[in-house]
Amino acid sequence: MNFSLERMEKTKEIENILASYLPGAKVPQEVILEAMRYNLLAGGKRLRPMLMQETYRMFGASSKVIEPFMTAIEMIHTYSLVHDDLPAMDDDDYRRGRETTHKVYGEDIAILTGDALLNYAFEVAIQAFEIEPSLYERIAQALKILAHKAGIFGMIGGQVIDVSVVGTTITKEELNEIYKLKTGALIEASMSIGAILSGASKEEQDVVLQIATKVGRAFQIQDDILDVTSTKEVLGKPIHSDEKNEKPTYVSMIGLKKAKEEVERLSQEALSLLKNLHVESEYVAGLIQDLIHRKK
Amino acid sequence: MNFSLERMEKTKEIENILASYLPGAKVPQEVILEAMRYNLLAGGKRLRPMLMQETYRMFGASSKVIEPFMTAIEMIHTYSLVHDDLPAMDDDDYRRGRETTHKVYGEDIAILTGDALLNYAFEVAIQAFEIEPSLYERIAQALKILAHKAGIFGMIGGQVIDVSVVGTTITKEELNEIYKLKTGALIEASMSIGAILSGASKEEQDVVLQIATKVGRAFQIQDDILDVTSTKEVLGKPIHSDEKNEKPTYVSMIGLKKAKEEVERLSQEALSLLKNLHVESEYVAGLIQDLIHRKK
Repeated sequence: MNFSLERMEKTKEIENILASYLPGAKVPQEVILEAMRYNLLAGGKRLRPMLMQETYRMFGASSKVIEPFMTAIEMIHTYSLVHDDLPAMDDDDYRRGRETTHKVYGEDIAILTGDALLNYAFEVAIQAFEIEPSLYERIAQALKILAHKAGIFGMIGGQVIDVSVVGTTITKEELNEIYKLKTGALIEASMSIGAILSGASKEEQDVVLQIATKVGRAFQIQDDILDVTSTKEVLGKPIHSDEKNEKPTYVSMIGLKKAKEEVERLSQEALSLLKNLHVESEYVAGLIQDLIHRKK
Repeated sequence: MNFSLERMEKTKEIENILASYLPGAKVPQEVILEAMRYNLLAGGKRLRPMLMQETYRMFGASSKVIEPFMTAIEMIHTYSLVHDDLPAMDDDDYRRGRETTHKVYGEDIAILTGDALLNYAFEVAIQAFEIEPSLYERIAQALKILAHKAGIFGMIGGQVIDVSVVGTTITKEELNEIYKLKTGALIEASMSIGAILSGASKEEQDVVLQIATKVGRAFQIQDDILDVTSTKEVLGKPIHSDEKNEKPTYVSMIGLKKAKEEVERLSQEALSLLKNLHVESEYVAGLIQDLIHRKK
């Protein structure tokens, strides 16, 4: 089977898992369930759950205990987009070619939808204890990573710095720190949780984290590159948005050519670390290459 | 020791616990830590952690495993206030006599502060596994209650209905449902988690939940009463805000006299159930009476 077809099938599999964890009850607060589905089932690359599941499988594991965590990480990623798009934040009207939550449901429901997705992420992740009670130590460790990487010392921390530096001059090191937290943290959480739940050794977990850090940074630099080289039609969102929002980026800082070289270097380092793990990593390697050379 | 003095000392004890779980690191995202402290250490009744701790103690338990959950429930309550106060929600400029988060830090940081408090609540609660690894089953059950009662089938669900009914006509039953979710759910979580972590029997847990449901409803009705009978100076926030926001309340629905009778009836029922538990419940009984007859 070729990589593109395999990836499409895996994406479909992930979307079925996500849908199965979404509540479908007929309740007076129905609108929030609808807004959660509107966002969570809106397509997208499913990068984080896919990296998590494939890292988990790469170490030979196959239990359903990974599924609540796959769902949780995608919910956390999704809530951050809902809140990021709000008028008081990036003020974006479109995302993935569709109107953003506050445009469709109003700002109050958009705030509550983000809150609901974040809270439900933990509500779902905790279900792992019921799926594999005997793995409670690994599950508790995975929960800890999830909360830490999503929080003030991870993704939220990155967003706070990002909001604070708009219109100011920052160094390349500071930009690296923003990227490491804002985008990198959830990618690190995805791969780390996959490794932890699979029962990978401490040494293997460390290597996986190093790979994830490189992939996360390369992914974000590629985002900056696409913001100046792609089109609105391909991305499904406005281009040149960083410039519009006066956001410092890798491209504005070191230029397009060097940014591309940096992506190449990081991806080669990640692939070489992956090879040294001596596990069946062909699909994960393909995924990393694809993510880093993506066009949208 | 008289009740007021005892309560003051317990409140101080809770505030020390809360402060001890707040991160104090010098990091570039420092502003979010400051905004979290601004809200979490701003005073308040500490009702939820106090009900949790005292329910826990009432069943004879004394481990520190309760502390991360006390902190988590107060963080969840606090984040909901931060987001509730936003311009797109209730648009309140003052809370507990001080400017609200978005007035002090801006709307973007206020949104992120709410997110950070919610996420950190789980990050803290999970630390219970490290405090008492042998109690992991109780801790997992407590986490499940926490997430469920805070989420779309608990507090957030109540907020969603609350936002949706502004300006419309609802029945007393619908209002009860809003109160049960919006205010009741976290009070239920507080007392239930105290009972679960203490090792109380399933039967005892059921009675505690019934008590909490009555306390939660009485507490919210008393809130409605104070909104029309108190002053801005005593409450630390504007009065007649329900009327201003066209929110249906118990008082607007059944009148002040009947609302007061309902509070009295619910509190008597709660106290009678508490007595039947045959545990040392003197302080909890005093607390319930005090909460229900409070002036602010």
